[in-house]
Amino acid sequence: MKKNILIIGAGGVAQVVAHKAAQANDVLGDIHIASRTVSKCHAIVQSVLEKRSLKMPGVLQAHQLDALDVEATKALIEKTRARIVINVGSAFLNMSVLRACMETGAAYIDTAIHEDPAKICETPPWYGNYEWTHRAECERRGITAILGAGFDPGVVNAYAALAAESYFDRIDSIDIIDVNAGSHGRYFATNFDPEINFREFTGKVWSWQDSQWTENKMFEVKRTDDLPVVGSQTTYLTGHDEIHSLSANLDVPDIRFWMGFGEHYINVFTVLNNLGLLSEKPVMTAEGVEVVPLKVVKAVLPDPASLAPTYTGKTCIGDLVKGTKDGVEREVFIYNICDHAENYAEVGSQAISYTAGVPPVAAAILIATGEWDAKRMVNVEELPPQPFLSLLDTMGLPSRIRDADGDRELTFDPLPQGNAIKVAAGR
Amino acid sequence: MKKNILIIGAGGVAQVVAHKAAQANDVLGDIHIASRTVSKCHAIVQSVLEKRSLKMPGVLQAHQLDALDVEATKALIEKTRARIVINVGSAFLNMSVLRACMETGAAYIDTAIHEDPAKICETPPWYGNYEWTHRAECERRGITAILGAGFDPGVVNAYAALAAESYFDRIDSIDIIDVNAGSHGRYFATNFDPEINFREFTGKVWSWQDSQWTENKMFEVKRTDDLPVVGSQTTYLTGHDEIHSLSANLDVPDIRFWMGFGEHYINVFTVLNNLGLLSEKPVMTAEGVEVVPLKVVKAVLPDPASLAPTYTGKTCIGDLVKGTKDGVEREVFIYNICDHAENYAEVGSQAISYTAGVPPVAAAILIATGEWDAKRMVNVEELPPQPFLSLLDTMGLPSRIRDADGDRELTFDPLPQGNAIKVAAGR
Repeated sequence: MKKNILIIGAGGVAQVVAHKAAQANDVLGDIHIASRTVSKCHAIVQSVLEKRSLKMPGVLQAHQLDALDVEATKALIEKTRARIVINVGSAFLNMSVLRACMETGAAYIDTAIHEDPAKICETPPWYGNYEWTHRAECERRGITAILGAGFDPGVVNAYAALAAESYFDRIDSIDIIDVNAGSHGRYFATNFDPEINFREFTGKVWSWQDSQWTENKMFEVKRTDDLPVVGSQTTYLTGHDEIHSLSANLDVPDIRFWMGFGEHYINVFTVLNNLGLLSEKPVMTAEGVEVVPLKVVKAVLPDPASLAPTYTGKTCIGDLVKGTKDGVEREVFIYNICDHAENYAEVGSQAISYTAGVPPVAAAILIATGEWDAKRMVNVEELPPQPFLSLLDTMGLPSRIRDADGDRELTFDPLPQGNAIKVAAGR
Repeated sequence: MKKNILIIGAGGVAQVVAHKAAQANDVLGDIHIASRTVSKCHAIVQSVLEKRSLKMPGVLQAHQLDALDVEATKALIEKTRARIVINVGSAFLNMSVLRACMETGAAYIDTAIHEDPAKICETPPWYGNYEWTHRAECERRGITAILGAGFDPGVVNAYAALAAESYFDRIDSIDIIDVNAGSHGRYFATNFDPEINFREFTGKVWSWQDSQWTENKMFEVKRTDDLPVVGSQTTYLTGHDEIHSLSANLDVPDIRFWMGFGEHYINVFTVLNNLGLLSEKPVMTAEGVEVVPLKVVKAVLPDPASLAPTYTGKTCIGDLVKGTKDGVEREVFIYNICDHAENYAEVGSQAISYTAGVPPVAAAILIATGEWDAKRMVNVEELPPQPFLSLLDTMGLPSRIRDADGDRELTFDPLPQGNAIKVAAGR
């Protein structure tokens, strides 16, 4: 059984991961947190201690680490005897952290696709650009690497797998809809690292339609849905990690991702983008300072973590799936609702971080108990969805379903009595 | 008779100054252009030669100069034997260039108030903060220093003086209205140095109302006027240099400045300002680069000089003056119309630069001929307006008047036959 966790990153998501791992440290063992800025790790440790999140007395330590340095990362994995690494640092780190895991035998979990700092919105297949080139090596070495195990990608992939497994014989379309109907009360802020946030939207929008890659511009295509709890919401066709793996792993002709934006966000984004302030290419000031405009925008925007204390409202993220079952057309929406203020009260982070940070800990628990210890590189839809969703149900991320029969909790058949479920039930 | 001109600065306005000075080099003598970036001076020299702007064969030279370095500036004044310095460089240079003039006996002309790079929109009296503290020294040394001799401030001050001298016994209000109804065809650009442009609007708006300083926020107060040629235009109450000197030099209870902005400009400005991207205070990026956000915005925006070739449309700048003459209430609008494309064809700059750059050359000619060689520090409204406006009439900036009697050219009584007028008429 694998245990001892090394968390890489110290932002809002890492804060959630640390709390949730602490709440399951009877299964997960020692908890280590490493980041370039060790003071941010210390703050997370302090928060975990203040909220008494450790389920039982145990190791909880902060470390300074430049995770682009593979040798340093390997040394830290060995020093901490971590068998599971949860990478929730910058998206630029994936390849070096994965390398360190492969060479030390640790399991690897991340929540977002690798990005090259110099490239924006690369041409699909995105996973194929970086992560999947290491599939054979993971298989050979017996390394468990679970890619994109946050909420989206992550839980929404499990929803898709569940739909394919239990609700449909044939799926025609999967529309993943991500809405944050919360309010942070600031003039403008991004809910996670502005650099990563904006990079999602400055390139072309790729979606999988009619079984082929389709190209659009950002904010070119929109839809409005009447969603549970959050009501009528307009969302925009957006490129997103999970479209690539789902289109490769499921036989579904239309897979699209839709993200909710208010008019104010779109206006600010449009101004900054048109002016060139979201560019990742350095500019030179008249005084001779060379700087990347996007990094300056990041520097003036509120720290996403600072929004949490006053954040109110809810998020709604789910999969709208259409297809047929037993020859009858059907439509289901499998989704989760999170509440910013409740999440903050529990772990000191808002719902955007919470939805991204809880699932990788559930994945770590399932690796620790063996249920998801695949010993190869996988995306979430390649793993059995029920243990994951069932565990999340007990960890603060319950799933619901809305279809012709109404809107109700998503329930599962009785599960095998594995450790993970016992642990989860114990909490 | 003073001659030989040293132009400090090499932006769009300096380009106009160089061309116009060249067109009058029989009166003005040698022409020297100095800037931190000497290649920009060379480009201006090249433009003057290409357009054959020199009236007669003469000296036209580029120099490298950091005009914050008083000793270097003094040395250049002495080396070039310049007796008139036209400072159209950054607004941060005024105090050092004035110091160099005072210590070498050269006449000084500028077009905008001094600014401290670290302060934005200082509390009035603005001229009182810097320039006017040197009045006594100029008087003692017999130095001619003409402050704010562009269009606004500058020509609009002469319009006010003319109104007081010729059209009114009592003036109740002067509303200076500045509208650029042209189009540069870009997503967004400022018409002069973005740093100086934005700094005008990021602080409080000061106006002179009921004979006292009144404070407003930017874009808080607006008006719409049906203006000659450019039609119905909305303008916003803005703080501006000339309000201070006019309120000190004329007995007028209400003196306001109104600048035209389109909704798009206001939106972009509002976004950048609210995000903190127009701040003059340095920020630190996550990578440890310290940089002033406003300077990064400047770096990504189009170079104002690059807009000129495709700029179309017209500007309208004037003084709407209300008061009484011979006991009867009257209202006059004294104004100028400029055409971007015509200005570009003549001197390679658009109308914003043209309106700012022609007047200081007219002032230099009037110093050279003695008519404005005041041998003390003055603002434009303290000098006789007729020679200035009459000369500008022949230099591409004709004045018009609109009142109860209609809209017509502004004509003057026959002028004394000074050199300046002969020169002007000769062109």
